[in-house]
Amino acid sequence: MSALLTQVHLQGPTTRAALTTTLGLNRSTIGDLTRQLEEIGLLVEVPPGEEPVVPGRRSGRPSLVVAPREDVTVLAVALDVDRITVAVVGLGGVVLDRRTRLHQRGEHDGERVAETVAQMCGELMALGLGSRLLGVGVSVPGAVRESDGMVRFAPNLGWTDVPFADLLATELRLPVVTANDADLGALAEHMRGAAVGADDVAYLSGSVGIGGGFFVRGLPLRGASGFAGEVGHVMVDSNGDQCRCGAVGCLETKVGENQLLAAAGRLPGGGPPAVAELIKAADAGDARAGQAVDGVAHWLGVGLRPVFALFNPEVVVLGGLLSQVFTARRTIVLEGLDPQSLISARDVLNIRPSSLGDDASLLGAAELAFAPLLAEPGRVDVDRPVAAQG
Amino acid sequence: MSALLTQVHLQGPTTRAALTTTLGLNRSTIGDLTRQLEEIGLLVEVPPGEEPVVPGRRSGRPSLVVAPREDVTVLAVALDVDRITVAVVGLGGVVLDRRTRLHQRGEHDGERVAETVAQMCGELMALGLGSRLLGVGVSVPGAVRESDGMVRFAPNLGWTDVPFADLLATELRLPVVTANDADLGALAEHMRGAAVGADDVAYLSGSVGIGGGFFVRGLPLRGASGFAGEVGHVMVDSNGDQCRCGAVGCLETKVGENQLLAAAGRLPGGGPPAVAELIKAADAGDARAGQAVDGVAHWLGVGLRPVFALFNPEVVVLGGLLSQVFTARRTIVLEGLDPQSLISARDVLNIRPSSLGDDASLLGAAELAFAPLLAEPGRVDVDRPVAAQG
Repeated sequence: MSALLTQVHLQGPTTRAALTTTLGLNRSTIGDLTRQLEEIGLLVEVPPGEEPVVPGRRSGRPSLVVAPREDVTVLAVALDVDRITVAVVGLGGVVLDRRTRLHQRGEHDGERVAETVAQMCGELMALGLGSRLLGVGVSVPGAVRESDGMVRFAPNLGWTDVPFADLLATELRLPVVTANDADLGALAEHMRGAAVGADDVAYLSGSVGIGGGFFVRGLPLRGASGFAGEVGHVMVDSNGDQCRCGAVGCLETKVGENQLLAAAGRLPGGGPPAVAELIKAADAGDARAGQAVDGVAHWLGVGLRPVFALFNPEVVVLGGLLSQVFTARRTIVLEGLDPQSLISARDVLNIRPSSLGDDASLLGAAELAFAPLLAEPGRVDVDRPVAAQG
Repeated sequence: MSALLTQVHLQGPTTRAALTTTLGLNRSTIGDLTRQLEEIGLLVEVPPGEEPVVPGRRSGRPSLVVAPREDVTVLAVALDVDRITVAVVGLGGVVLDRRTRLHQRGEHDGERVAETVAQMCGELMALGLGSRLLGVGVSVPGAVRESDGMVRFAPNLGWTDVPFADLLATELRLPVVTANDADLGALAEHMRGAAVGADDVAYLSGSVGIGGGFFVRGLPLRGASGFAGEVGHVMVDSNGDQCRCGAVGCLETKVGENQLLAAAGRLPGGGPPAVAELIKAADAGDARAGQAVDGVAHWLGVGLRPVFALFNPEVVVLGGLLSQVFTARRTIVLEGLDPQSLISARDVLNIRPSSLGDDASLLGAAELAFAPLLAEPGRVDVDRPVAAQG
């Protein structure tokens, strides 16, 4: 049941015939499992009206199309430095509706943010988009302890040891799960983005801070306490500035959004549109903007070096402004990396922009909230309200 | 059978009672498996004569002691920059005999080295220490392609694309398996050294070159093509010298044996004894030696930073000269790492010297050669000569 539900969740509407092939189960087993998942309200079977005719196809009973029930939903929350995004996401990974709100000045206090998020969630829940709401997944730009979801350290929010999942769960009376934004971006890119099918994945994403999420042998890299993948604090320049973390020359001090804007003589803030505008100005001949973009591209390359040296990744996915800069200045990034000097990079050099863009972490937060359902579809109690299932 | 054989191989002589508890199988199953493994000549059961009396122990049939058959052997080969070591290792991981020979000047040519190793192996085989020889495991100081054992790049031997396993197999007519020395050191420390029981392990070892081997979730980190863990080529100093690899400021240019000796005004070469002597001189007040050791300690700390940032390891094991320097200058290493600036290092800071010392890679090479037997003990054909089992 888990494998079948996951398949339909990731692939969308799928014929029974395709499920039979993909999952390696026989037709009657697929039929039984589909019926069970339909009974507990997770899938629907649609008659094969819209099915394309495949030439040369074996005759026989036409295969039904199995589709995810989009009214089975989660709330996905992405906390960014300047804004909060909340979305209702249906089974199948479809964003049904969303809200974005800028943080008010000084509104980074954990309890205040939890209140705001709860309010935004309430507005979306009032739309009645889902017949069933499983829970809430939250993406946080910081280090999240795996065991209990405690936000140990989120410097760009000014948080140290903020139990955000607990705060939000108390407000919403729903199960809340939390994880690091880059880990969730990596999860989403691995499930339905630029890293589908790859076992060894490095995901680096840049906005104000720089985050990293890794997959090793097809599983997320966690480390001893869930803090692995802190690529923003790998040193790239011994002569660099002191980082907020206290060390000198961290990647984050070189390729963060504010450093990029400052190097071009611009004010901080503005997010992806401001970066896009800067790259456009650079391409139009603005020398200072050009130098700023070139600089970030160079340091991104230098920062990729330890990633290749240590992980020998099958694919590197770049998100946020790193994706924008890589797309615009690929050659400079590769010069900084210097693949010829590393056997791993010489052998496999596969760097791609994110395919989910700025939604990667949000979609990853949704997947985090869907994960218990996908792992054990049969344990979902269809008659009890969601909040009691925690 | 695999679990029982592996347990006895790792733990040495073990009572049936202990095996029953550890493996969670009942007494009669343990008895059956032990008998089967005894029949195919991999274990022996010894009467409980030497067993210590445990006060308060339940009476009943005394438990037999199950021991590995040390006459089931492999040959383990460690290629180092200045020397070749070959050992006969018995089941249970016991080194039964060994030979070491220095490379002759210019004798790094792949075919010549294979001839020398084959000769050394022949001398050890002539001793008749094992009734059965399963194959050969080789540790190489370079990047080894996982798929076919091709040595892609071993700069300290001057090798590029040397099919050493094939060369040696042709000489010896035995199955030969090859892997990177640091990966094998990590394997041995994980199986029977300083990292037993840890799932997320970083192993860094230093001699002329610097190697790294990692475990993630209890499994070796390989990467897309087996080249993961190249910690020697992580940049630690933007102002540093150019490395043999072409890049600037690699860890290997800062903490390699020759750099350490040169910084103290000494000639290159000499291995662990030369390093030990240098540290002794530093401790006795030789200022130049002291500065050299302090410098290596500092850069080792800086090199550990990306390891903690990216892996959040449960334990870091240091081998070779890194172990010597860490033991002598722990405080300076930690200052270079600056754990307070990294959430992962603040949370789990567990750095240990190797417990297998300079034999780690050699013992890892033996484990590599034992691995097929441990995985499928029943597939070993006791009547056919080993060479035909390849």
